[in-house]
Amino acid sequence: MSKVKNIAVLTSGGDAPGMNAAIRAIVRTGNYFQLNVYGVMYGYRGLINGEIMKMDSRSVANIIQRGGTILKTARCKEFFGYEGRQRAYEQLKKYQIDGLIVIGGDGTFKGALTFSKEFDIPCIGLPGTIDKDIDGTDFTIGFDTAVNTAVRAIDKIRDTAEAHDRLFIVEVMGRDAGYIALHSGIATGAEHVLLPERPTKIQDIINELQANERRKKLVNIIVVAEGDESGGANEVARAIKEQLPHFDTRVCILGHIQRGGSPTCMDRVIASRLGYAAVQALMEGKHHNCMIGIVNNQLHYTPLEKAVKARQGIDPEWFQMIRILAS
Amino acid sequence: MSKVKNIAVLTSGGDAPGMNAAIRAIVRTGNYFQLNVYGVMYGYRGLINGEIMKMDSRSVANIIQRGGTILKTARCKEFFGYEGRQRAYEQLKKYQIDGLIVIGGDGTFKGALTFSKEFDIPCIGLPGTIDKDIDGTDFTIGFDTAVNTAVRAIDKIRDTAEAHDRLFIVEVMGRDAGYIALHSGIATGAEHVLLPERPTKIQDIINELQANERRKKLVNIIVVAEGDESGGANEVARAIKEQLPHFDTRVCILGHIQRGGSPTCMDRVIASRLGYAAVQALMEGKHHNCMIGIVNNQLHYTPLEKAVKARQGIDPEWFQMIRILAS
Amino acid sequence: MSKVKNIAVLTSGGDAPGMNAAIRAIVRTGNYFQLNVYGVMYGYRGLINGEIMKMDSRSVANIIQRGGTILKTARCKEFFGYEGRQRAYEQLKKYQIDGLIVIGGDGTFKGALTFSKEFDIPCIGLPGTIDKDIDGTDFTIGFDTAVNTAVRAIDKIRDTAEAHDRLFIVEVMGRDAGYIALHSGIATGAEHVLLPERPTKIQDIINELQANERRKKLVNIIVVAEGDESGGANEVARAIKEQLPHFDTRVCILGHIQRGGSPTCMDRVIASRLGYAAVQALMEGKHHNCMIGIVNNQLHYTPLEKAVKARQGIDPEWFQMIRILAS
Amino acid sequence: MSKVKNIAVLTSGGDAPGMNAAIRAIVRTGNYFQLNVYGVMYGYRGLINGEIMKMDSRSVANIIQRGGTILKTARCKEFFGYEGRQRAYEQLKKYQIDGLIVIGGDGTFKGALTFSKEFDIPCIGLPGTIDKDIDGTDFTIGFDTAVNTAVRAIDKIRDTAEAHDRLFIVEVMGRDAGYIALHSGIATGAEHVLLPERPTKIQDIINELQANERRKKLVNIIVVAEGDESGGANEVARAIKEQLPHFDTRVCILGHIQRGGSPTCMDRVIASRLGYAAVQALMEGKHHNCMIGIVNNQLHYTPLEKAVKARQGIDPEWFQMIRILAS
Repeated sequence: MSKVKNIAVLTSGGDAPGMNAAIRAIVRTGNYFQLNVYGVMYGYRGLINGEIMKMDSRSVANIIQRGGTILKTARCKEFFGYEGRQRAYEQLKKYQIDGLIVIGGDGTFKGALTFSKEFDIPCIGLPGTIDKDIDGTDFTIGFDTAVNTAVRAIDKIRDTAEAHDRLFIVEVMGRDAGYIALHSGIATGAEHVLLPERPTKIQDIINELQANERRKKLVNIIVVAEGDESGGANEVARAIKEQLPHFDTRVCILGHIQRGGSPTCMDRVIASRLGYAAVQALMEGKHHNCMIGIVNNQLHYTPLEKAVKARQGIDPEWFQMIRILAS
Repeated sequence: MSKVKNIAVLTSGGDAPGMNAAIRAIVRTGNYFQLNVYGVMYGYRGLINGEIMKMDSRSVANIIQRGGTILKTARCKEFFGYEGRQRAYEQLKKYQIDGLIVIGGDGTFKGALTFSKEFDIPCIGLPGTIDKDIDGTDFTIGFDTAVNTAVRAIDKIRDTAEAHDRLFIVEVMGRDAGYIALHSGIATGAEHVLLPERPTKIQDIINELQANERRKKLVNIIVVAEGDESGGANEVARAIKEQLPHFDTRVCILGHIQRGGSPTCMDRVIASRLGYAAVQALMEGKHHNCMIGIVNNQLHYTPLEKAVKARQGIDPEWFQMIRILAS
Repeated sequence: MSKVKNIAVLTSGGDAPGMNAAIRAIVRTGNYFQLNVYGVMYGYRGLINGEIMKMDSRSVANIIQRGGTILKTARCKEFFGYEGRQRAYEQLKKYQIDGLIVIGGDGTFKGALTFSKEFDIPCIGLPGTIDKDIDGTDFTIGFDTAVNTAVRAIDKIRDTAEAHDRLFIVEVMGRDAGYIALHSGIATGAEHVLLPERPTKIQDIINELQANERRKKLVNIIVVAEGDESGGANEVARAIKEQLPHFDTRVCILGHIQRGGSPTCMDRVIASRLGYAAVQALMEGKHHNCMIGIVNNQLHYTPLEKAVKARQGIDPEWFQMIRILAS
Repeated sequence: MSKVKNIAVLTSGGDAPGMNAAIRAIVRTGNYFQLNVYGVMYGYRGLINGEIMKMDSRSVANIIQRGGTILKTARCKEFFGYEGRQRAYEQLKKYQIDGLIVIGGDGTFKGALTFSKEFDIPCIGLPGTIDKDIDGTDFTIGFDTAVNTAVRAIDKIRDTAEAHDRLFIVEVMGRDAGYIALHSGIATGAEHVLLPERPTKIQDIINELQANERRKKLVNIIVVAEGDESGGANEVARAIKEQLPHFDTRVCILGHIQRGGSPTCMDRVIASRLGYAAVQALMEGKHHNCMIGIVNNQLHYTPLEKAVKARQGIDPEWFQMIRILAS
């Protein structure tokens, strides 16, 4: 018998393609097992303000393929304070909600953890962030779509770079994590990839650009994660132009196009699977206050305490490979 | 009987998707009618330097779907001077080239015009520019692809704008012309479109944003052409933030992704048709020193003198429509 | 002052991408001018059955980029009979609807024409069909999207055709009209295009395939409109295999993917413009029982009687061009 | 020191998007480590016939984003016989090739295994097949692209299905394996998925369609793997129409579009990584006659004997999930 009767779902933090697929899975799985499922608008802010609505199968029809999140999202300072969380709890009581699923990144999980401890409400976290920087899962909802958007954009940039023999510095998202930069850089044959996880000497890059020039290789693409210690694409371009003013150098900051768009197959499948598992975890009364991820293609449960931003280094082998393959 | 035996083609100025389809059409049509067709690399610069190669059917196999230009392109100051053009002419003589097709914008056409007058070499211009700002043609090679790329990007931005209730200022290409902004703005349901062809008072926009806020419409997209007199998206955002600091405002500059990518059906068909017609014009000895465009779905020949940047106003009706449809 | 107060819109016949953009434009333009706008579900069937709902700005939020039609569509035999039309008229009276906009093809227009004559209700037709076979307009809503979908699909097929040296026979939509076949064939560099507008001798194609084989050209793409007199791709393949059994021949029928998908920029802009114009035509009491199209980039009004399937031939020049460019 | 000096690469069997990325990685990694790298055209057939060419960095420029395989591929009966393999070996001797990398599926691996045993030539296999049905790797080159192509196509079909309240039976590739069907079915919210790995009673589906009809759910999508025991989409449609003639039922066979197209980020990254690893395995003289795959995000070496078609069942949990999520 299910341990819960009324559950709620919210999305919080930055939006990520695939969140809708997770919401859909949660609502339909919940309904199938005769739970009431409530959607909370605008993340924790809506929880505090009571922007809560009952959802059914039709509320989530035809959204699996949509970017964004139909529940909207927001950052919410009030929820950092006890008073805010108390008001949130009162809203849950009002609806007799006895289980909460939060989709977001590590900030979202921290909020859920504190909340669940204070008010004894079982919470399940699902990793939804395009940055992929969450421990305890091989994938996060949204990364695959975002990185493919970056790849398609850089492909287009390469077309015009080739036509003009230009150097392009392309900035991709990733404030603390370089996964989008790393994967999109490899996939587009970028000459260099700059990431927060690893310091790069701009001088080394400049030297190589000169070496490339000597062997008539004039088209170069440098992918920079926004959180790289260099300060981003504009800074990198400035440093290069100073020493190589004769290079035809251009900057592209891909920006928010990486957050939107119809999710890829992988993001939809992962999101569906995690949403389905989250409801079952609440029903079984197991894995409370865990994040559910996928490791080795299996569901994997990580206590919310540990489901923080991954702070792993990236194997230097990857950088060796990037240089060899772009040679 | 053909008036020419050896013809050359070059692409010049900014690259535009579909240029490869035009090159392919020129080479294959020329070969079919037993002309020798030469490709000139890097526009007028390659003409001066003799970067010229004979092309055949295989040189242009499998390029109709590629962005960029296999002949590469460049801007070339030397060709502005008589000496540069004389050297270019000597290269043509060397290869016995008796007809030249140039693909580009109005700068390209001006060069061709002077050159053809001085050295009596028949030139045909084909309009290749994503900006669509050429008189004497309803379409230019590259516009349709560029504007669709902008539309797909803004669709993605709207996904994330909706998720966060944000205001996005999106800058699209168009230094002198607002066609990309106008069409992509209509197609994405933008709330405002700012173009060089028409002054906009930022204050009016700010007033409307406030009116929208009062009726709970918090998601707004403003599309700005890079050449708008406001100074571009960053300037517009600065002005808005000053008066509406509580708005969640973001800027996206789409940049060079608009130049690349596999051309749309329309750009491929137009480019094929124009390339095919250009060879025939040279063979028939007609329409020398004309740009070939398409008007009312018919080939249309405009003397190069007149094929300059279009300086038309945009009908105010369009702006009325944009406001009504975004309401 | 407006001649109408309450207007209705329906989509009928085959769906076409961009119909939603037209519906959005009609609803918002109507509301802006203080008309009540009703949406009729399922075309004429819903008109008869009274599946009619009032629409406002929010009903059409975020649909401009969606394929399909939110009003759904259907074919309806009852509307061919007087009794059916009378019931439809009674529904209109019930809602005091004094103007009707129908989006569809020539079948849709015929129905509207009869209806408007019998019951003196002003009707405006908008051309919505992927086949583009309507007289009185240079574009129809949906064609550009459909043909781009076909082009992207054939590009993919060419990738695998090149890998295997294969002959592919690709069938595209177009029961009576070959525009999708013609444009997608040119845009993908197809070796042959078979259309209903022009008889093709399969034997000629077979002879050319053999000639191609002799000169080591083994990859060939033949685009066939479904309505071609040959009987479609499977029939063409059968005839070719009979004489050329050693060819590695494959068939692809693109089918209904051509009807869906997010509309292109052009389809959205056309649809918006036509929807906007349709409301104004009703308000001004002009152009009743006309189809509004776009000719030479201007709005163009054609009496519904004349807005039938275009039965034009296709200029033989196009076929000459296709053969030369694929050579 | 490297154990090999001259290596060759070929692609064999069905082509898969990402093969070019693998070829590029092999050529550039080989060249970087001062090996000569030869490309063999048309798989084993070209090996027998000596269609072998030396490759360098430029031969593989700008191919990472291309579908198909620049080395082309073929099926080759001669290589099944000893005489064929002997001729292949003589070609290798002629070029002093001392290491061979084959990219393909289990048929390809079987050929390599026999060949390497008979002639003592070290072979490395890389899994390249859109079907994903290879043991010893979590991913195969091409699967992610193919399944995303299927998903985008089915999204389009859903648009038109929704517009008409239709039932669509969509056939995807997968002669022996249902992965494309399974993943694309989940990702598009298909109501049913039919796979070779699991028998389905058509009657159960028909019963559910009727139940759906009773609760006014008229849009249904059934995804069928081509190798399903039902006989494919046409057979399924026939059976359904027999009992439910009033349903508006349509069939779409996606076909070869699933083989082509620019590879996704994942396919490019996997292919790059595997190509890079394959050269290193040959150089180190380790893992001969192994297939290199990726398991748990690590390189994984499986003896070619074992790298056969995966014959695993698919967990029934997936089917339960599909039904619940489509409800």
